[in-house]
Amino acid sequence: MSYFENFMKANQAYVDLHGTSHLPIKPKTKVAIVTCMDSRLHVAQALGLALGDAHILRNAGGRVTEDMIRSLVISQQQMGTREIVVLHHTDCGAQTFKNEEFAAFLNQELGVDVSGQDFLPFTDVEESVREDVELLRQSPLIPDDVEISGAVYDVATGRMTVVQ
Amino acid sequence: MSYFENFMKANQAYVDLHGTSHLPIKPKTKVAIVTCMDSRLHVAQALGLALGDAHILRNAGGRVTEDMIRSLVISQQQMGTREIVVLHHTDCGAQTFKNEEFAAFLNQELGVDVSGQDFLPFTDVEESVREDVELLRQSPLIPDDVEISGAVYDVATGRMTVVQ
Repeated sequence: MSYFENFMKANQAYVDLHGTSHLPIKPKTKVAIVTCMDSRLHVAQALGLALGDAHILRNAGGRVTEDMIRSLVISQQQMGTREIVVLHHTDCGAQTFKNEEFAAFLNQELGVDVSGQDFLPFTDVEESVREDVELLRQSPLIPDDVEISGAVYDVATGRMTVVQ
Repeated sequence: MSYFENFMKANQAYVDLHGTSHLPIKPKTKVAIVTCMDSRLHVAQALGLALGDAHILRNAGGRVTEDMIRSLVISQQQMGTREIVVLHHTDCGAQTFKNEEFAAFLNQELGVDVSGQDFLPFTDVEESVREDVELLRQSPLIPDDVEISGAVYDVATGRMTVVQ
């Protein structure tokens, strides 16, 4: 059994709640949120976002990668966002491994050599937020007047704490 | 004024609703959802996900990139997911530009030469889902027994439609 079928059924119920809406393609708040894929973080609820409010970008760890920059450039230059929030969280999967051991495990498990690849693990979550905010500030593809903030989300309490 | 402050205030209210929970780091459904950053798609609501249910990965277009594969490998090999849903949507920002014109625009706007970079635009949304499902099926880093489904989300109605 695949869960996809369950999601399709749940979506049928959602359609009735949704009704027909014609929100603009450009996010109302002009904010893009960069965060983690973690299942215990529901971004819209945690930040009070309505449909149409903000772009939400998520990868393992909420890390600023080339693909994250690609997405932010489209978000800003095609869809008018002017602010970025980097939101990492406590008890993150990116804190559960180190590159070298993970590569050895993948080689054994999948028979693929990924030695040398950076899977972007981190140990200190406030430090990882600061690093990623800095990467955005340094990027020539992100204009200097874009406002960039950082925070940590606590998966146990739902609370966000600002990272200076 | 930055919206970040508004989000922090909204989060204070969310904390009261949230209470303290200790959900496992591994997603309950063992599903990872690959989708777009679009502001008009609230993934948890649209698919009926509770906190802790599924990984949610989002970039511009919901495209399968190297960073998406990195994230999925962590999702699967560290956190036990065994199913992937690729969910693109109608009226996508990735349908609003072509690489060459976009690169020229960025050169003019930001003074950065990104000619030759693929920003992963698409024209046909069902075709882009099929392409990305195929990229996952071909990846040596995604095991063959991982179930992969594709769908399109309609931002006007909230309805998901299966892509075969």
